[in-house]
Amino acid sequence: MNVTTEQLFTEARTQGGYLPAPVSDDTLRQLYELMKWGPTSANCTPARIVFVRTHEAKAKLVSCMDAGSNQRKVQEAPVTAILGMDMAFYEQLPRLFPHTDARAWFAGQPKKIEETALRNASLQGGYFIIAARALGLDCAPMGGFDAAALDAAFWAGTSVKSNFVCCLGHGDPARLHARNPRLSFDEACRLA
Amino acid sequence: MNVTTEQLFTEARTQGGYLPAPVSDDTLRQLYELMKWGPTSANCTPARIVFVRTHEAKAKLVSCMDAGSNQRKVQEAPVTAILGMDMAFYEQLPRLFPHTDARAWFAGQPKKIEETALRNASLQGGYFIIAARALGLDCAPMGGFDAAALDAAFWAGTSVKSNFVCCLGHGDPARLHARNPRLSFDEACRLA
Repeated sequence: MNVTTEQLFTEARTQGGYLPAPVSDDTLRQLYELMKWGPTSANCTPARIVFVRTHEAKAKLVSCMDAGSNQRKVQEAPVTAILGMDMAFYEQLPRLFPHTDARAWFAGQPKKIEETALRNASLQGGYFIIAARALGLDCAPMGGFDAAALDAAFWAGTSVKSNFVCCLGHGDPARLHARNPRLSFDEACRLA
Repeated sequence: MNVTTEQLFTEARTQGGYLPAPVSDDTLRQLYELMKWGPTSANCTPARIVFVRTHEAKAKLVSCMDAGSNQRKVQEAPVTAILGMDMAFYEQLPRLFPHTDARAWFAGQPKKIEETALRNASLQGGYFIIAARALGLDCAPMGGFDAAALDAAFWAGTSVKSNFVCCLGHGDPARLHARNPRLSFDEACRLA
């Protein structure tokens, strides 16, 4: 599928509001089928996703978001993804990374598990956002929520914890804010 | 710039070895100019990068990598990026996120700083890998190194800690391994 780096990076914007245009379940499946191929350490792929589309699930999610614009955005967006990380990801390694005993690198090491889950689920979060943009969707990733409430509402009975939330849909260009600046190459990078 | 989702996701592969074809400094600058636009929470952009290209810097980096294929890949690749995270990222927020006092959300809160740095520097790591592929580069991200030695060798006197390392260049198709499987949509995702 043809895309442009303008669409993925230089002209893509975090949205302040959404138009009512819907997003199909088929598009959400395509999104996963792209992002799943992004590399993670030992192919551990800890990201887990709930796509919130129904009225009921949306009401539950809104009640977990910080008051204000985060609640409004989730209310408006046709879909909001909850990106979680499976803290038992290493139980899948015998299948996902079969040529060595990678499960043994993690079992019983909570600090290593936590760091690996957060690093790799967030890497996958980057793939998710770019894949969504490749499919013509606008994104609004958000960290402003009550994590304990969100975990209880959407991941109860699982080993998954919430990482971040991302509205998906078609942004309302009238509600874009001015773009924030970025560090220059020389501020962020060094050639050695 | 035109790219394809095959090049970015479905046909891109983590490389097992590199051809000697060089990568220009100009390409490395273009890579940063793409990835820098990816969204982070409160525009905190904690990722910092050292691009290792010279013989001297490469020897220093090789000595920090785990013995075996990680050392060989760094030795072969024309460039290896060390992706770090600036634990003092919040000092930049008055400039990067100017419309509120976001610095105050972090100052004096080491656990929140650490989690925010790892989450967002890793999100940016995802943007980095996809941007590199958009520019026609192959990647081999790696976590197998002595973090304390790497921090001392490349980030001494700064507030930056190493996150992961990523070889960049043109992969040798003769040294690709079989592709590891991924979780299915139904294993990793839920519609709600």
